[in-house]
Amino acid sequence: MDRSLEYAQRLDAEDPLREFRGRFVIDDPDLIYLDGNSLGRLTHAAAARAQQTVREEWGSGLIGSWNRHWFDLPQRIGARIAQLVSARPHEVVVADSTSVNLFKLALAALRARPGRRQIVTDALNFPSDVYVLQSAAHCAGSEYQVIVVPSRDGMTVPLTDLQAAVGAETALVCLSHTTFKSAFVHDMAQVTALAHERGALTLWDLSHSVGALPIDLNGTDADLAVGCTYKYLNGGPGAPAFLYVREDLSAALQNPLAGWFGHAHPFGFALEYEPLPDARRFLTGTPPIVSLSLVEAGVDLVLEAGIERLREKSVRQTEYLVTLWRELLRPLGYTLNSPEAAASRGSHVSLGHPEGYRINRALIERMRVIPDFRHPDNIRLGVTPLYTTCVDIYRAVEALRKVAESRIYLDYSRLPSGVT
Amino acid sequence: MDRSLEYAQRLDAEDPLREFRGRFVIDDPDLIYLDGNSLGRLTHAAAARAQQTVREEWGSGLIGSWNRHWFDLPQRIGARIAQLVSARPHEVVVADSTSVNLFKLALAALRARPGRRQIVTDALNFPSDVYVLQSAAHCAGSEYQVIVVPSRDGMTVPLTDLQAAVGAETALVCLSHTTFKSAFVHDMAQVTALAHERGALTLWDLSHSVGALPIDLNGTDADLAVGCTYKYLNGGPGAPAFLYVREDLSAALQNPLAGWFGHAHPFGFALEYEPLPDARRFLTGTPPIVSLSLVEAGVDLVLEAGIERLREKSVRQTEYLVTLWRELLRPLGYTLNSPEAAASRGSHVSLGHPEGYRINRALIERMRVIPDFRHPDNIRLGVTPLYTTCVDIYRAVEALRKVAESRIYLDYSRLPSGVT
Repeated sequence: MDRSLEYAQRLDAEDPLREFRGRFVIDDPDLIYLDGNSLGRLTHAAAARAQQTVREEWGSGLIGSWNRHWFDLPQRIGARIAQLVSARPHEVVVADSTSVNLFKLALAALRARPGRRQIVTDALNFPSDVYVLQSAAHCAGSEYQVIVVPSRDGMTVPLTDLQAAVGAETALVCLSHTTFKSAFVHDMAQVTALAHERGALTLWDLSHSVGALPIDLNGTDADLAVGCTYKYLNGGPGAPAFLYVREDLSAALQNPLAGWFGHAHPFGFALEYEPLPDARRFLTGTPPIVSLSLVEAGVDLVLEAGIERLREKSVRQTEYLVTLWRELLRPLGYTLNSPEAAASRGSHVSLGHPEGYRINRALIERMRVIPDFRHPDNIRLGVTPLYTTCVDIYRAVEALRKVAESRIYLDYSRLPSGVT
Repeated sequence: MDRSLEYAQRLDAEDPLREFRGRFVIDDPDLIYLDGNSLGRLTHAAAARAQQTVREEWGSGLIGSWNRHWFDLPQRIGARIAQLVSARPHEVVVADSTSVNLFKLALAALRARPGRRQIVTDALNFPSDVYVLQSAAHCAGSEYQVIVVPSRDGMTVPLTDLQAAVGAETALVCLSHTTFKSAFVHDMAQVTALAHERGALTLWDLSHSVGALPIDLNGTDADLAVGCTYKYLNGGPGAPAFLYVREDLSAALQNPLAGWFGHAHPFGFALEYEPLPDARRFLTGTPPIVSLSLVEAGVDLVLEAGIERLREKSVRQTEYLVTLWRELLRPLGYTLNSPEAAASRGSHVSLGHPEGYRINRALIERMRVIPDFRHPDNIRLGVTPLYTTCVDIYRAVEALRKVAESRIYLDYSRLPSGVT
């Protein structure tokens, strides 16, 4: 293929989503930011919204802003995220962290499947999700356990391996839809069908999928899901996460962490808990309004661009990146640590290298390229079609090539052995 | 006493803290805001900080701001709050909602006292705290229960009533230090001594105390505490809450909702959970950074004013309010629903009236006075010494008098009977 800068520039000029980059605050156009899958960029709309929420709604509106602007934010933003994941508006709410939401849904699911004592997950899931699942299992009872299906290649877990693990003891199958390290994408329809066939519920972590690729929760009959808003949704650092509960399940599921925001009459101040009817029953305490309000701006921009178009561009861009890897980086010792087939890959590409840690440092400090590093040897290159250009990808590959060829990474220390 | 406006103005002129009102954004100086115990006002410092966190740290600093500004925020702000509650710096962290923090500490406490199956609380506690305690009890096992000690007068719960309830079955005594409706203040030293004498742990909800009165967690040997930052700490709507774990207890207490922020090596991505040594082990997921960062500005202002001086002013102001009630409002049918002795009262004063709901509406819509209403007949008047003036109090009492005398509250509908 054409490996020239001009070719990358032509791809960008032909990009139907090229105008969206202008909607972001980009102070340094030469910085190549490939970490939108860890922290999405700030939109101009979110910057304005922060001012409005803080200065106008809090500063001027005071307590009256709860009724006028804030009480319904968890469901209002939830309803917009629902459009991105093919869910009904009242099936999604935003509040708490991904971990807290995962805990609530996992424990509720275990209690809804009495007699089944296992949660099945895989080794590609976020370790923090595994800690949370273990926490939920502990709360359900000492006989509960979390089964972690290993990955044979460190990159994928095929359906057949899950088939071998999901059985009559399985209450819940909980997986990251797009896995955080390799970007491998599970087949939501097939895994959900497998779980249902064996009497288990499914709980999807959509953190690395939402805003990056179309998700069909209703169409695949998925039961439960959670997801982060600060990656491809550009909601801001640590922005509150969302949770999804399929409509027909909500009546049967109780929030194991009941709080006043999930109460049918929060200002009745009754000592008895009476839950709201839908996914709102999984709300707990007062949500962090300033952080929460910024999520709306991020979600709206993704809706405006259209998730199908974003996925098309993401595939074009990760394919371009994989092609450049094959031609320019593979000969230098970089391995592709993501699936080669675009259909099984999210919106980031992981490259492995024995000197990955030091190369990552050199990229940041010498080449003005921001990827991120995941233990032990993994350089993640996140493509965010709303603002990543093909020139960014071209330059990042050039930087990876130069760092390896020049060996300037030798100037940096190795990963300290204590830090695992 | 002198009931003139001039007298109130003289009190304000002599107030050693009078300059602090200028540190807040006050767009409408004629609005009498007596709801700082529900949502504290915006400081100029927080407005500037929002801009800095969003525009500079997120917008320009991108992912690098995690290391430069954000990772240590939970413990950095925690260490400042520790100064307000007489705790050691590493005993306090900020993250999650009050409800989520309460759940984590309550369940950890139950697991640390095996064989004891009761949580003792009282009917003056937030109902939402009771839901959370019931949730924690449910997770501990079906034989666990929450004992709610009733209040004989609807306003106080004396130590003797707690003595009758706390026994060999009690694992945990959990109370609001200052109760949300009547502002009754429990004697932390006496209750803690009682609990310890009978082998139980204590867990204090400091939401209506912190920033309003001195709290001596270390001096009273209190075990655990949580508290809200959006009331007297002016942290912003729904700002993350704090939790306190006494130093010598933290090793024995495990976070029942383990997450990566409480992990000793969060970027090791190991599937095994290894907790941090101190209160940080009770962190769970990624905290909402924008909301969290604003808490710092609010806490710093309270530290600058000094909690002893704030309490002195609060007592002077609530005493003034109670005196005006006695002389002007009691004859009109208003009852004092807070303790008459300042030593047993926090920084708000509750007045009862059979028409409390409609009077509250008339105050807001006709008199430009913002109290809040708590079911069934309770008008709360929150005094925030950082910005509440004696003229505010004088005018609020005048408004309460006029609304009752003129009966303009009859223009408003009663509380709908469905809304309990």
